[in-house]
Amino acid sequence: MNNFTYSIPTVIHFGKGQISHLAELKRSGDRVLLVYGGGSVKKSGLFDAAVKILTDAGISVTELPGVEPNPRIESVRRGAELCKENKIDMVLAVGGGSAIDCAKVVAAGACYDGDPWDLVLDGSKIKAALPVYSVLTLSATGSEMDEFAVISDLSKNEKWGTGSDLIKPVMSVLDPCYTFTVPAKQTAAGTADMMSHTFENYFTNVKGADLQGSLCEAVLKTCIKYGPIALREPENYDARANLMWAGSLAINGLLSYGSEVGWCVHPMEHELSAFYDITHGEGLAILTPVWMHFVLKKDPSKTAQLAAYGRNVWGLTGEDSEAAEQAVNKTAEFFFETMKMPANLRAVGITEKTHFEEMAAKAAAGCGGSFVPLTKEDIVSIFEMAF
Amino acid sequence: MNNFTYSIPTVIHFGKGQISHLAELKRSGDRVLLVYGGGSVKKSGLFDAAVKILTDAGISVTELPGVEPNPRIESVRRGAELCKENKIDMVLAVGGGSAIDCAKVVAAGACYDGDPWDLVLDGSKIKAALPVYSVLTLSATGSEMDEFAVISDLSKNEKWGTGSDLIKPVMSVLDPCYTFTVPAKQTAAGTADMMSHTFENYFTNVKGADLQGSLCEAVLKTCIKYGPIALREPENYDARANLMWAGSLAINGLLSYGSEVGWCVHPMEHELSAFYDITHGEGLAILTPVWMHFVLKKDPSKTAQLAAYGRNVWGLTGEDSEAAEQAVNKTAEFFFETMKMPANLRAVGITEKTHFEEMAAKAAAGCGGSFVPLTKEDIVSIFEMAF
Repeated sequence: MNNFTYSIPTVIHFGKGQISHLAELKRSGDRVLLVYGGGSVKKSGLFDAAVKILTDAGISVTELPGVEPNPRIESVRRGAELCKENKIDMVLAVGGGSAIDCAKVVAAGACYDGDPWDLVLDGSKIKAALPVYSVLTLSATGSEMDEFAVISDLSKNEKWGTGSDLIKPVMSVLDPCYTFTVPAKQTAAGTADMMSHTFENYFTNVKGADLQGSLCEAVLKTCIKYGPIALREPENYDARANLMWAGSLAINGLLSYGSEVGWCVHPMEHELSAFYDITHGEGLAILTPVWMHFVLKKDPSKTAQLAAYGRNVWGLTGEDSEAAEQAVNKTAEFFFETMKMPANLRAVGITEKTHFEEMAAKAAAGCGGSFVPLTKEDIVSIFEMAF
Repeated sequence: MNNFTYSIPTVIHFGKGQISHLAELKRSGDRVLLVYGGGSVKKSGLFDAAVKILTDAGISVTELPGVEPNPRIESVRRGAELCKENKIDMVLAVGGGSAIDCAKVVAAGACYDGDPWDLVLDGSKIKAALPVYSVLTLSATGSEMDEFAVISDLSKNEKWGTGSDLIKPVMSVLDPCYTFTVPAKQTAAGTADMMSHTFENYFTNVKGADLQGSLCEAVLKTCIKYGPIALREPENYDARANLMWAGSLAINGLLSYGSEVGWCVHPMEHELSAFYDITHGEGLAILTPVWMHFVLKKDPSKTAQLAAYGRNVWGLTGEDSEAAEQAVNKTAEFFFETMKMPANLRAVGITEKTHFEEMAAKAAAGCGGSFVPLTKEDIVSIFEMAF
């Protein structure tokens, strides 16, 4: 097991009716920037409910609406300006990971003199940030409880993750009821996203991180049990609750402390999203089984770990090589049949291979130190297999 | 799943050499009360190392030595007095759960005008506390990362748990190497303690807390894998590391948030310790399989949950009734054969039944709202079966 420092300061108010805790933002000041995406939080009444609690608590609200599904640097710049102009005290995201990621970099940008894109390229430049709060409406990225934010500059086909302890949310409200209206496509993509976070931590070369591995399996089994139930019964509270909490635990540090390795599927997917603006979770689902197959082929010494995944998560038996192969198939079946997700790149509108070389070259920077280090050529092969 | 508020503010520095972080206590002030037990931390050199780091950081050290294995209110009173006399800024425990529990109530007692025993009887009376820090030397109670403290008044045969967010450690150092010298008896008792914390959360009547249940299974499997290795190879780093981290996660809230029920085996054991001053973990190991048997007999509707435990933790198969029965046997075998723990009350020196009625009456107050509510008569039966 590796050395680590555990620090998860975010307070989570989980469950029905917990939005009343928004009144506690008053501790951070009198002026909030409310960051949100499309009209769904308005349609659902959540927006009005949040604004009422805030104004009743004596907090004045400035709005940053229209944050994109892959949040863009332009929104961040606009938000940081709003903070400076209106002497904002804290930033509250109401929405999914996109709104929260945007809010995090806005909160840092508000305390930074240069262009917020600098902070996306280099998280260590974040030296201060306004307090960040969130009300989560989509179980997926885990941004509500972690230090990360992913921002895109589509003018450059770039999508990068940044991170800092300073942008960890102070408090997040997780009410599973807010996810009842999440459409099937986003429910599936969110489930794939949290499973991918878990896989990135689970397949590690660190020895002796057994507890972390078993915790990963717990999260994976929960996703596999409740993802399909949430698709069939969108208002099943326990399904939505288990997925919501699994999404937070998948990336808040619990699964990685002591076992962390370099991620690989995420860097590859970020290139797909940066070039084609596809749904992140769908890109991850498409790449994950292909990546697993490739790993088994490139480095057969990983067979035992894939087999253990098959046994402990899918209940498979048999020899390592068979269990490993079946585990990959089970994963693909889960995403593409059970969760009804698009199974290849063409199915999400990537109909030509023009950018494979360029995307692979960029992703290779992220995949060089992963479970099985991948070269640019390896990644081109994976994109080809996923096509 | 139940509503919950997640708040685990303790920062953990985990791994080899992390003791250097003690210099960070300077943030809390210039004067520390160093709370410890017997001579083992002196023999191992840990005491001197800690004092050197503290004094090098400009922190003056006042000592509270001699904290007992079941820490007593007399030590707490002495510590609180020392804090007041010496204008202590923060309290640092170096030791196991006993030293940390004592330090917590000392930290609260230092900010309280009355007798600290009031704070043991009623945690809500804790309105302020000095910052608490710890260096852990025994994997067991999880006190290094939680809000609880258990203090005994042997003059009254009383042992009670108290708790407050205000006494959660600010920071704890968990270096598995410090547990290399823990004797077999304490290694086994510590493993039983963390497993019992996990069982108390795992066997719940809350529906839909699947993720929490799977996380419990992860902790249990880790204890079952690494407990015996730590017994055989006391200096196996990964074994000590997995047990150490399992002990913290078993009771820091992670396993109970959303699924919590009233504990039952702990209240029963606390009576044994209060009357006979036995080792807490040994008492828990003795009572746990007996309690499981009793639960199955008293409320057969719990069979499926015990069977799930058998399947998911012990890999058992077969019908519910068989898997449940076997799961209890596996648990007993693990404690009494694999971990070589005393198997009944007589083996820990409780050779007469004089106090069974009195102890059961007290424990019943704690067991009334548990997984299967137990009456005084039930608890007498359990003590009889454990005799």
